[in-house]
Amino acid sequence: MIKVGYLGPEGTFSEEAGKVYAKKLEGKVEMIPYATFHDLLTDANRNKVDEAVVPIENSIEGTVPAVTDILAQENNLKIKQEIVVAVHQYLVAGKGVKLSEITDVISHPQPLGQCTEYLRKNLPKAKLHLSHSTVEAIKQVATSISEKGIVFAAIGSKAAANLYKLKIIASSVNAKGNETRFLVLAKNDHAKTGHDKSSIVFSVAKNRPGGLYSILGEFADRKINLTKIESRPSKKALGDYFFFVDLDGHRDDALVSEALKNVKKNVAFFKFLGSYPKHK
Amino acid sequence: MIKVGYLGPEGTFSEEAGKVYAKKLEGKVEMIPYATFHDLLTDANRNKVDEAVVPIENSIEGTVPAVTDILAQENNLKIKQEIVVAVHQYLVAGKGVKLSEITDVISHPQPLGQCTEYLRKNLPKAKLHLSHSTVEAIKQVATSISEKGIVFAAIGSKAAANLYKLKIIASSVNAKGNETRFLVLAKNDHAKTGHDKSSIVFSVAKNRPGGLYSILGEFADRKINLTKIESRPSKKALGDYFFFVDLDGHRDDALVSEALKNVKKNVAFFKFLGSYPKHK
Repeated sequence: MIKVGYLGPEGTFSEEAGKVYAKKLEGKVEMIPYATFHDLLTDANRNKVDEAVVPIENSIEGTVPAVTDILAQENNLKIKQEIVVAVHQYLVAGKGVKLSEITDVISHPQPLGQCTEYLRKNLPKAKLHLSHSTVEAIKQVATSISEKGIVFAAIGSKAAANLYKLKIIASSVNAKGNETRFLVLAKNDHAKTGHDKSSIVFSVAKNRPGGLYSILGEFADRKINLTKIESRPSKKALGDYFFFVDLDGHRDDALVSEALKNVKKNVAFFKFLGSYPKHK
Repeated sequence: MIKVGYLGPEGTFSEEAGKVYAKKLEGKVEMIPYATFHDLLTDANRNKVDEAVVPIENSIEGTVPAVTDILAQENNLKIKQEIVVAVHQYLVAGKGVKLSEITDVISHPQPLGQCTEYLRKNLPKAKLHLSHSTVEAIKQVATSISEKGIVFAAIGSKAAANLYKLKIIASSVNAKGNETRFLVLAKNDHAKTGHDKSSIVFSVAKNRPGGLYSILGEFADRKINLTKIESRPSKKALGDYFFFVDLDGHRDDALVSEALKNVKKNVAFFKFLGSYPKHK
């Protein structure tokens, strides 16, 4: 039995990504919902779950800061797999509610950001409220007692709307091309498949002109394609960054191994995050 | 009279940054609070306010995505000035409330992120709620009727706590070195002072190995120091990014002007965001 943790409750896109991943695994899988990333990744680090499925970036809203920052910290977790899930958000409310009656909309900040345009056009006067997850938002709309003159709607998944017996007011209310990339974190990364990616995080000495440039040169000189560069504050001072880089190839490829060795020598901080098969 | 817009209500760190900026201006300043970045920047673009003060990045929580993304869009706004404000968050509640009694904490997602460690140590069981601003959180704690068994606290500024007559339970609850960088956006950027920075945003053709590297080379070859590189999704597809780069020097400097000209020629998208004096 493989224990796979994810950010719950049931009905989240994390659960959907977890299910996509579970299908790839041979053997029985137990899916375990967690309330916070911190609890999930602490348990994964202590082997209380075997693997953790976490969202890392969305095509509209960008990086998931809490998860990205945890990757840079000291822990025993490596990236074993990436999963990309298409995201379709729905505007949902209680039975009988019409779009024109909605006065308040609740959701997680990311989906609210993904649906900015729809909301501005269709519900410009609605008051926006923030929740910790889309499922929590839907649950609140399903269970809260209505106040006079206030009609709540939520933004979330169809699965969660069905779970809580809410009505779909509008479909695909998010910006087009909305996808979320998830990572599966485990004790070991993935063996070479010939169609792989690797992820690293590093920091360069501050205010060294060309510092990042010379690091990127290690990859460019070897024609290694970079698929992502993300900067995040190191949390030490403004202007001091960690760089998260994804590159084509596996740590067992000679050129990748050589480039990583050189990068490691020339940075202030380095952490190898894992090699894993590319999402097709 | 110069009209300066900021993200209100009164008591926010944006207002504090606006006041720091107002002191630098000669002549009378009218400070105008806005409810959303979108409204503020729309009015600035249409000249309904002369200048807009917006937060762009925090040393702990990183970029402010909504503002960063607006910079890349078509508009008439240039960066005229940067303002850095030290951020001190306070845990505040109604009079007579003790730390041990607090069951619920409300604040904006960024300050909650800045205070994660304090909350985990001191209020590990507290339920966290999200608000659109620290002032809104404080207002809610000050005005909401208490329910049985539920004691709310907020995280926000001392100024806002005083405004709403709440008691400070704990000071400086955020991570150390907490600073926020604000930008002043106006129709024109700043004349050369000899101690300047410039900001640009660009995108490189997707999956072109070394694409970003060759762009950064234009600066490295001229010994131009880069103080920030931030990637943000272009919102077209996963893996397609805008790069926001800050560099030392003014667009009127010969080397900077030359580098920018070459960058512009070799990217899929380019926008010059402004030259302005460096924060000291």
